[in-house]
Amino acid sequence: MATNTHSKNKFITRNTRVGLPPGTLIKNSDAPNTPTIITLYEFNETIFTEREILSIEDAKTALENTSTIKWLDIDGIHQPNDIAAVGKYFNIHPLTQEDIMSTDQRPKFEEYPNYTAATFRMLSYDTSIQSEQLTVLLLPNVVLTFQESNAKDAFNVIRERLRNNKGRVRKMGADYLSYVLIDAVVDTYFGILEKIGERIEFLENEVLLSQETHTMVSLHALKRELIYLRKSVWPMRELLSSMQRSDSELYHESVQLYIRDVFDHTVRLIETIESYHDLLNGLMDLYLSNLSQRTNEVVKILTIISAIFIPITFIAGVYGMNFDHMPELHSVYGYGAALLLMFSVAGGMIYYFKRKKWL
Amino acid sequence: MATNTHSKNKFITRNTRVGLPPGTLIKNSDAPNTPTIITLYEFNETIFTEREILSIEDAKTALENTSTIKWLDIDGIHQPNDIAAVGKYFNIHPLTQEDIMSTDQRPKFEEYPNYTAATFRMLSYDTSIQSEQLTVLLLPNVVLTFQESNAKDAFNVIRERLRNNKGRVRKMGADYLSYVLIDAVVDTYFGILEKIGERIEFLENEVLLSQETHTMVSLHALKRELIYLRKSVWPMRELLSSMQRSDSELYHESVQLYIRDVFDHTVRLIETIESYHDLLNGLMDLYLSNLSQRTNEVVKILTIISAIFIPITFIAGVYGMNFDHMPELHSVYGYGAALLLMFSVAGGMIYYFKRKKWL
Amino acid sequence: MATNTHSKNKFITRNTRVGLPPGTLIKNSDAPNTPTIITLYEFNETIFTEREILSIEDAKTALENTSTIKWLDIDGIHQPNDIAAVGKYFNIHPLTQEDIMSTDQRPKFEEYPNYTAATFRMLSYDTSIQSEQLTVLLLPNVVLTFQESNAKDAFNVIRERLRNNKGRVRKMGADYLSYVLIDAVVDTYFGILEKIGERIEFLENEVLLSQETHTMVSLHALKRELIYLRKSVWPMRELLSSMQRSDSELYHESVQLYIRDVFDHTVRLIETIESYHDLLNGLMDLYLSNLSQRTNEVVKILTIISAIFIPITFIAGVYGMNFDHMPELHSVYGYGAALLLMFSVAGGMIYYFKRKKWL
Amino acid sequence: MATNTHSKNKFITRNTRVGLPPGTLIKNSDAPNTPTIITLYEFNETIFTEREILSIEDAKTALENTSTIKWLDIDGIHQPNDIAAVGKYFNIHPLTQEDIMSTDQRPKFEEYPNYTAATFRMLSYDTSIQSEQLTVLLLPNVVLTFQESNAKDAFNVIRERLRNNKGRVRKMGADYLSYVLIDAVVDTYFGILEKIGERIEFLENEVLLSQETHTMVSLHALKRELIYLRKSVWPMRELLSSMQRSDSELYHESVQLYIRDVFDHTVRLIETIESYHDLLNGLMDLYLSNLSQRTNEVVKILTIISAIFIPITFIAGVYGMNFDHMPELHSVYGYGAALLLMFSVAGGMIYYFKRKKWL
Amino acid sequence: MATNTHSKNKFITRNTRVGLPPGTLIKNSDAPNTPTIITLYEFNETIFTEREILSIEDAKTALENTSTIKWLDIDGIHQPNDIAAVGKYFNIHPLTQEDIMSTDQRPKFEEYPNYTAATFRMLSYDTSIQSEQLTVLLLPNVVLTFQESNAKDAFNVIRERLRNNKGRVRKMGADYLSYVLIDAVVDTYFGILEKIGERIEFLENEVLLSQETHTMVSLHALKRELIYLRKSVWPMRELLSSMQRSDSELYHESVQLYIRDVFDHTVRLIETIESYHDLLNGLMDLYLSNLSQRTNEVVKILTIISAIFIPITFIAGVYGMNFDHMPELHSVYGYGAALLLMFSVAGGMIYYFKRKKWL
Repeated sequence: MATNTHSKNKFITRNTRVGLPPGTLIKNSDAPNTPTIITLYEFNETIFTEREILSIEDAKTALENTSTIKWLDIDGIHQPNDIAAVGKYFNIHPLTQEDIMSTDQRPKFEEYPNYTAATFRMLSYDTSIQSEQLTVLLLPNVVLTFQESNAKDAFNVIRERLRNNKGRVRKMGADYLSYVLIDAVVDTYFGILEKIGERIEFLENEVLLSQETHTMVSLHALKRELIYLRKSVWPMRELLSSMQRSDSELYHESVQLYIRDVFDHTVRLIETIESYHDLLNGLMDLYLSNLSQRTNEVVKILTIISAIFIPITFIAGVYGMNFDHMPELHSVYGYGAALLLMFSVAGGMIYYFKRKKWL
Repeated sequence: MATNTHSKNKFITRNTRVGLPPGTLIKNSDAPNTPTIITLYEFNETIFTEREILSIEDAKTALENTSTIKWLDIDGIHQPNDIAAVGKYFNIHPLTQEDIMSTDQRPKFEEYPNYTAATFRMLSYDTSIQSEQLTVLLLPNVVLTFQESNAKDAFNVIRERLRNNKGRVRKMGADYLSYVLIDAVVDTYFGILEKIGERIEFLENEVLLSQETHTMVSLHALKRELIYLRKSVWPMRELLSSMQRSDSELYHESVQLYIRDVFDHTVRLIETIESYHDLLNGLMDLYLSNLSQRTNEVVKILTIISAIFIPITFIAGVYGMNFDHMPELHSVYGYGAALLLMFSVAGGMIYYFKRKKWL
Repeated sequence: MATNTHSKNKFITRNTRVGLPPGTLIKNSDAPNTPTIITLYEFNETIFTEREILSIEDAKTALENTSTIKWLDIDGIHQPNDIAAVGKYFNIHPLTQEDIMSTDQRPKFEEYPNYTAATFRMLSYDTSIQSEQLTVLLLPNVVLTFQESNAKDAFNVIRERLRNNKGRVRKMGADYLSYVLIDAVVDTYFGILEKIGERIEFLENEVLLSQETHTMVSLHALKRELIYLRKSVWPMRELLSSMQRSDSELYHESVQLYIRDVFDHTVRLIETIESYHDLLNGLMDLYLSNLSQRTNEVVKILTIISAIFIPITFIAGVYGMNFDHMPELHSVYGYGAALLLMFSVAGGMIYYFKRKKWL
Repeated sequence: MATNTHSKNKFITRNTRVGLPPGTLIKNSDAPNTPTIITLYEFNETIFTEREILSIEDAKTALENTSTIKWLDIDGIHQPNDIAAVGKYFNIHPLTQEDIMSTDQRPKFEEYPNYTAATFRMLSYDTSIQSEQLTVLLLPNVVLTFQESNAKDAFNVIRERLRNNKGRVRKMGADYLSYVLIDAVVDTYFGILEKIGERIEFLENEVLLSQETHTMVSLHALKRELIYLRKSVWPMRELLSSMQRSDSELYHESVQLYIRDVFDHTVRLIETIESYHDLLNGLMDLYLSNLSQRTNEVVKILTIISAIFIPITFIAGVYGMNFDHMPELHSVYGYGAALLLMFSVAGGMIYYFKRKKWL
Repeated sequence: MATNTHSKNKFITRNTRVGLPPGTLIKNSDAPNTPTIITLYEFNETIFTEREILSIEDAKTALENTSTIKWLDIDGIHQPNDIAAVGKYFNIHPLTQEDIMSTDQRPKFEEYPNYTAATFRMLSYDTSIQSEQLTVLLLPNVVLTFQESNAKDAFNVIRERLRNNKGRVRKMGADYLSYVLIDAVVDTYFGILEKIGERIEFLENEVLLSQETHTMVSLHALKRELIYLRKSVWPMRELLSSMQRSDSELYHESVQLYIRDVFDHTVRLIETIESYHDLLNGLMDLYLSNLSQRTNEVVKILTIISAIFIPITFIAGVYGMNFDHMPELHSVYGYGAALLLMFSVAGGMIYYFKRKKWL
């Protein structure tokens, strides 16, 4: 599968296209050399067929049938020729074709005279967030989806609904299909947020209870994930907002209600991300405050021990001097008096620290 | 009662609906299995009846009477069939039905051709903020309220006003009733803010007077509550703003003045939340500054004691050496001179620290 | 006088009205039981009368005279009946009446068909900011002002100008009068800001010169005041902005220029508050940096003394051992050599610290 | 010269006008008692005269000549009568007259039926930012400038261009003259920013290389200046934006291009101020980090010395005890063995610290 | 080459033009005295010529040919006369000419009746960001580019495409050429961001693994670069937004799609810059937290050693006193008992620290 597995690198935006004419299709140098697999789903309320096709010409008959909805699920976007062939058949603008193949696009929704294009990211969470690019094109009666790999996609539930005619998806048009696809992806974001939320909860306990030194590193790692997630979800909100305000005839009014709904989901995602961000910052402050507190306590112990023993060690030192004429040394009570003095000093110190509430 | 009692979890947005067709009604897996109780209030300026009904068909006669206002208070939203039956009767959009049942919706106001829907949260404050979802639907002459449980709702005052014909509520229409219901909920927010304000005040005293180490944890806990509250109130403001700008014919102009009023309340809530947020941050800074101050003082004490006793202990050490030829040891004044030297050094140190204002 | 004298409580928004029908007039439970005093000022360019009236009926003749401007200065807003009587006479909306009596309103400007209402706060600065609510209603030829107590109000200068026909106030209409009243209140804000500015200056000196431990507490207290002031002035800006954009016929175009002027004042107030806020944050950072600096210095002194004396105390300790066979002890030069060694070690340490610029 | 020379006070907004009728002209109590000097510049492409006039009546002939542009440069704004005379002659609104005389106005641009007024600040940088208020009025064919003192103004270059007919200024109208005056003032802002930039560079070196304790104070002082500068430049941007959007007939379209240019300058100023602000914050963080680093090192030295000498001093102490029965003391190798033990312990400590990379 | 090589100075905005009439062309005092080299590219889909011309008159025949596109690449902008000659030939507004020559312009897009002008910065990254100003003018069928030096420009790929007729550039108009030039520059920004991203990754490892004291300085240096980059890219976004919204007839609709694409790139750049900024701040916090952690550990070691040895050194001191009457000294078990006592105390301390998890 083609997702970005090096979490460290995921913030680095590579642009290997520098110097190429706009709209040129090239294979990303570090992309896998997987072949393109196209699956055609043809359906309406009564019929449903699903088959793998070898080339876009293969689907011609189906595509010319106006009484059915077609979903072309294109798995693998690293073969320029395959993408160009599809692009040519459907008259897709070169810039859109380029967007499909450059896998670090910013999520966006664009309207062209004959189609609309939504490019965004499918996220999954293993030990860190994994990310894959997805493009959904809506044409009259046809939906095209381009993804890096369908091994882990969020669409199996949709495929099942199509096969079993569950829900509204076979009763409504291509616009509704494109909506449910996007909705399925946004739904996975909630799963990721839930995992991050659990991780924050776990770290919160760790900050409150233990004194692990790695906690700050974990908090930082989580913040990194949130920054990445925010970078993915914010433009998603814009995308859906453009979709909602779109006056393309491809989207019927009845579907607009559903788009409003998924737009609301992204707003909720963003608000939760911001709350998590605030919580993480709060936990970091708490961690640092605890650290200062502990240093304070360590220094207190040092000070108490020093304050008790240094003065009395001095007294012992005085009576350890070897002067010939030290009358105290020869008194019978000298030793006792010296010990008494030492206890008094130590006791005084202890009393002082008790009053200061350090003990 | 069905409120979220695990405050730790309240930030985690769970989405158990992943993969389900939009508009599907399912019971939240962790929701209680309570039955749905529907109470029908029928009234106008002169008449008032209140009774529990078993199914929506039961209320048919009342609902067909256009000279009265009907309030259907639906208590318990975890039985999909019951919600679907109500939804079917009133022709409620499936997305709205889904919103009613998914109890972690973002507060929102939506207009449909035949009704308007406001979904928001009812908050209560025990040791932490408890939260419950509420949906208010306004149809011609009918108000529907869906809540997780009415055991703790804010509507008893409204019920009393209806029964006793106090205030304007029985003189005006269904739109006014929907307004007073929302207003009652927003009013409870003030109570929560008041409690948080008192808690901040208490912690402020603690920061200023005592040196409790748990204070930072309490401040953090309060900040958490504020973040949660903000997440609930901000969309409430949007909700009321949409309501105000709504051109639905269901809201008459005379009621718009009241909606403006409750909108102002949410603005005031938000401003107070932001002020509290600033105050809490200020208190945290103050706490950390106090902590640094205390560490500084602890180190000062350590330094003073060390600076006084370490040098004179050294002097004692010198005259404790066992060299055969140490002329001072044999002088009659040796001991006295050594003591004098020690006192001078100690006195010098004390003088130095006095001048530095450390003593 | 009825102002809020408990500065600690001033952030807490109390809502004792929970559960009451909107527009109900009740006395705030902690409000003083002072009677309502109404003063009527009637004037135009040539005549001026001023008298206390017992009830609104008393002023009927004056109010029916369209050739004069009337100002009803209502002092004391805690008697529901009195407010209701005035409200009924002038046909004031119940929500406005409620706003007049609830003394923790957010500043706002509202237009009603027959009048405009501006509710805002009158501030004074004693040891902390005191605050009192004021409502100004503009009706054709009539201005009504409702205040908690006129004992400390900002209007004596206006009263003098009316009595002595100074400035434009008796030459222009009721709208101009309502403007000068608001302008007088905004002017007092500058006085408060000036006092806060002086206090910041004082604390700046304290941070730079002295090491007072209470400084941080004072900075925090001042920040609190600024947060409160900001919460009062920001909505004031909105209020004046609405007033400016108002298309109520009650405000003539010539007065709009003056409103623009006082609007500019609030913008200036806000900018100054934000600057003060930044300055205070800067001072806090400076204070904390100074504190760290001082701790650093304290630790330096401790380290220097320890580094000089601990090694030489060890040497003294060595020659204080009681071994039978310690040849150095019996040498004539032993003592001198030991002292020399000690001086060398101490000197080396001092040289080291000098080179490190610690001494 | 009348600029504000007390940098400490420059944030304090004084409002000595509290209680005066709006539009009243009074002399600022702390303003100098300098007389008003009016210089009249009359010119068109072919002619140019420049003379000091005693009163506005003096300039009557010139002002009535529509074939020339007139610039009245009014130096000194502290004589209410003089300002009022000019105001009366040109029919200037009382509020504008008041703005001219109150020297702490917020920069603003206002349109009146017969003129436009731009009030803003002329800045100079000595050891801190000095500031002076300037008002530019544009009437048909006439420009009026009011300044506190022209001793240090930015207009000498304009005067030279007028005298020598350099650039476009004598070929174009009064609107262009008003533009070049504002442009000249904005240009001086760049000079101030350049000086602040150099100062930041100097402090950056200081933070990186030296350990001066005054650096934080200098950084704070510079931040103060930036806060003040921001407070002056932001409204300047608004001023020029209003000027650009102005539909006053006084500004011809050809001059709009120039105003857009100076507007762009203010945007650049603001962006640079924000960058400087970020840089300063970064430097402060770096300074504090260095300070922590140094404290860490000081404590390390203390710990190393203590860890090496305290244990071996203890060993020396043991063999300095006076017990009768201590067999080691009487062994021939006792002393050597004790020394060896001490060296081993010290060596072990040194090895430990080497491995921890502290040495 | 003329780029700004002193990274330290790059934030300082110098304004050597103070006092000059707007639109005056002068050579920057610190600019190199390089001659202006003009290269003319003339092409359409079938023909292509490229030659260096000595003066603009040289290109007259080509420029009058309406069937070809002309690109005048003007290398060197420090000769006022040369710029003025070009400006006069094409009727360029003096303000635009001035912008071309002042090399610290803010990126902007301006429309004039006969041309559009885009001024922005070409960035390269060596050890720090280098920057050079570039102005692109679009006239009918003609593109003018003005740059400080073409030694390092981003246009060689465009030149190659023109020569070899690759991509669309020779098939489309002058507007498309101006777009590809801007696109090529924006593409280089990605390269810089990639380098910064790698640097952040490197520093992240350093913060996590090592304790280098220079890390904070490197983080600060990187933040500086980001601040500078942000200052360059934000106005670029505005520039492209204005270009997109431009209703100049010079830009055909087909090119608007491409401009939208490069606009999207700048938005992506900005979002990445902001993410990097957040990451850097996170790393700084982590670094400081690590530093506190290490100080805490150093102090712990000091405390442990002191707490173990100071008390037992005291015991040794007691029995080193020279009192005549100290019965313990004469006991046979005295020494053993004393050693036992010391071991117990030391062991107790060690046990205490073990329980506190410090050991």
